[in-house]
Amino acid sequence: MMSVMELYQKLETQAVQVKALETAKADKTEIDAAVQLLQKLKVDYKQVTGEDYKAGCPPGADDEDTVDPWNVSTSNAKGVDYEKLIVRFGSSKIDKELVDRVEKVSGQKPHRFLRRGIFFSHRDVHQVLDAYEKDKCFYLYTGRGPSSEAMHVGHLIPFIFTKWLQDVFDIPLVIQMTDDEKYLWKDLTLEECHHYAAENAKDIIACGFDVNKTFIFSDLDYMGSSRDFYSNVVKIQKHVTFNQVKGIFGFSDSDSIGKISFPAIQAAPSFSNSFPQIFRGRTDVPCLIPCAIDQDPYFRMTRDVAPRIGYPKPALLHSTFFPALQGAQTKMSASDPNSSIFLTDTPKQIKDKVNCHAFSGGKDTVEEHRKHGGNPDIDVSFMYLTFFLEDDEQLEKIRQDYTSGALLTGELKKILIETLQPMIAEHQEKRKQVTDEMVKQFMTPRPLKVNF
Amino acid sequence: MMSVMELYQKLETQAVQVKALETAKADKTEIDAAVQLLQKLKVDYKQVTGEDYKAGCPPGADDEDTVDPWNVSTSNAKGVDYEKLIVRFGSSKIDKELVDRVEKVSGQKPHRFLRRGIFFSHRDVHQVLDAYEKDKCFYLYTGRGPSSEAMHVGHLIPFIFTKWLQDVFDIPLVIQMTDDEKYLWKDLTLEECHHYAAENAKDIIACGFDVNKTFIFSDLDYMGSSRDFYSNVVKIQKHVTFNQVKGIFGFSDSDSIGKISFPAIQAAPSFSNSFPQIFRGRTDVPCLIPCAIDQDPYFRMTRDVAPRIGYPKPALLHSTFFPALQGAQTKMSASDPNSSIFLTDTPKQIKDKVNCHAFSGGKDTVEEHRKHGGNPDIDVSFMYLTFFLEDDEQLEKIRQDYTSGALLTGELKKILIETLQPMIAEHQEKRKQVTDEMVKQFMTPRPLKVNF
Repeated sequence: MMSVMELYQKLETQAVQVKALETAKADKTEIDAAVQLLQKLKVDYKQVTGEDYKAGCPPGADDEDTVDPWNVSTSNAKGVDYEKLIVRFGSSKIDKELVDRVEKVSGQKPHRFLRRGIFFSHRDVHQVLDAYEKDKCFYLYTGRGPSSEAMHVGHLIPFIFTKWLQDVFDIPLVIQMTDDEKYLWKDLTLEECHHYAAENAKDIIACGFDVNKTFIFSDLDYMGSSRDFYSNVVKIQKHVTFNQVKGIFGFSDSDSIGKISFPAIQAAPSFSNSFPQIFRGRTDVPCLIPCAIDQDPYFRMTRDVAPRIGYPKPALLHSTFFPALQGAQTKMSASDPNSSIFLTDTPKQIKDKVNCHAFSGGKDTVEEHRKHGGNPDIDVSFMYLTFFLEDDEQLEKIRQDYTSGALLTGELKKILIETLQPMIAEHQEKRKQVTDEMVKQFMTPRPLKVNF
Repeated sequence: MMSVMELYQKLETQAVQVKALETAKADKTEIDAAVQLLQKLKVDYKQVTGEDYKAGCPPGADDEDTVDPWNVSTSNAKGVDYEKLIVRFGSSKIDKELVDRVEKVSGQKPHRFLRRGIFFSHRDVHQVLDAYEKDKCFYLYTGRGPSSEAMHVGHLIPFIFTKWLQDVFDIPLVIQMTDDEKYLWKDLTLEECHHYAAENAKDIIACGFDVNKTFIFSDLDYMGSSRDFYSNVVKIQKHVTFNQVKGIFGFSDSDSIGKISFPAIQAAPSFSNSFPQIFRGRTDVPCLIPCAIDQDPYFRMTRDVAPRIGYPKPALLHSTFFPALQGAQTKMSASDPNSSIFLTDTPKQIKDKVNCHAFSGGKDTVEEHRKHGGNPDIDVSFMYLTFFLEDDEQLEKIRQDYTSGALLTGELKKILIETLQPMIAEHQEKRKQVTDEMVKQFMTPRPLKVNF
């Protein structure tokens, strides 16, 4: 099925085509055929979106939600409308059937991120599970853009989940640190970005990845050490036009050629022969990418290119965004220390931030709260607990008590603080144990312990 | 001094600026100032080109000559108007003073390509010679796009001259084989382009380069083995916009992102720290690039970027084009075997091609030729002799005798055949001696014997 975005792009192309034929005074039957197709596409568009096609106005442009790799925002306090996003991006919802299947195939209770819809959307995950059931290996690919030393709890979401996937499926994992991307987009030197890559790698390693099954790489280092990786980058670059990245990423003529060609570098790790040291040159090992939904444009492009260069399309698991303390309207900002809990925060900082900055869904006075109850759907403390509190029953009880008014905002915040403090302290303890030598080990291209 | 092209680009920008101010209903004094600058630029443009500025019409667009990395053509039988090209590109003519200086600094008689204006244009060569005179090393950089196994004599021109420069200045040389470029532009596989790179390297090595001072590299291999090379590529890519490459190379929105970002890869070898194994990380070793003038757009871009990323601008030596046997209106085509003398041609093939296909400036009958004489300026056999006959006096005598009619076309062709046959046979002999082991040696990143 074509996604709304693909339909829109097809319409744009067809409109240009009709104009070109008219300008060239082409044969009338040819023009009529082109116009007819245009009309048909417009009808389809209206059917799917409920709105008329407007030239130059991509679907969702009028919506309140903006979601791309560089901007995420919404005016809705509950956060982005993820159901709409699934329609717009043309992905599939992670339904109970899929969660049950993951449980059956892995033999493990699904991770809370799956149970609670934090990973809510996917592409082709059933195919990866089909292969796995036939004793075929697949591999995981995720990544991080190292734009500063400071990482916050939200940055850990894909890694916590990926670590779980690695454990239950016992499969190899590659983690891309896009230091080249950060250099291209930010006012930073190459050396700074490369340094942040190594520092961030320590936080990632602290999540508990198995060094025997995990390869972490800086783009700057790996591009300059792998002929096969660069070959795949060039292959992808040959099969994507500026028009396409303009449509997908919104690039303009005044963007650098580095930005314009970068998507190929984020695409390349989706293909197993980018890592000959791991997959011994095999081109057909399926790839599963857990990532936040804002990264999907990169992989829509990747999946479009894959069959044209003879590779399998990567499968995806999309997560929702981790809300800022101030509310779910936007992603957190690494540059605003009060917008989130950082991995370096002290117990006191955690307590103060939650108490002072966490947006509350409670009522203004205790009396009112007891009477009318709070709204957990817009309460950031409650949202954070859905990410980090393991016990489903306890979470459900908190939700009910907060909704009824039995649980006060201060009490809810206290539960969150007591959940975050030991979690962050444990992370800090584990990170301390990550030596430069260990980072080097994880980041050295080498064979992994893989069972094909 | 600004080149005509730079002036034109400045005008285009200023015109957009004026329009933007008017649209935004900006302050009147601001608009007036912008309009005034626009008028001044228009006057400058008219003064330099003798023509009115027309929006969207780059200088030379109305000329008969097309010269860019992918197209060279002219309707003039004498070939491209190189004097006009110098004005259009904003380069400098190689005058007697520069040729004399090369002789003085190198202590050697200038190569026939310099004596005869085959290398006719340059950028900043005086600066490289200044540095050399102060005992500062510089290095040479040239390249080849390996699109097939077949190379013709014209392909050797930059290499013959570069070999001479390496000998007389005793300096290191890097040769880029742009196999990635050929993959991006042609209907070829990566493997084919990479294979052609190694095959073409054999013909290049047969020109006599010193393995101790020469590094030949395939982009596909070197990008994947040098962190420093990729770092420079990314630095360049960050500082060049799509608008710029559109203006310089004529790329369009439907070009692949690989093509759009490739110019950075041809630019990177202009900076010495792209080769840390040779220059030990130094960023300031000056670079001199001998190449055909159609490659100049790449290096105009490189020279524009260089100061913004803290590197010296490369100097250039530009050659004219080697004419096709059919005439100087176009470059030779590797796909038409009769358009040139190939490096694999037998003595008989050489004889037949010259006799049957070399465009003649002679008269139709012996009687007329004896009476009116021939025109060496449009005679391809004579042009070829200016490239390959070493003896200046003999060449001048041939010119005079052909012009007077004393020398017949058949006789002129015979001289060319007798010049080419032993030259090509010698090349074939030398190429036979180039083993795969030698190619590997030349193409291995390693320190060179360099005197700093």
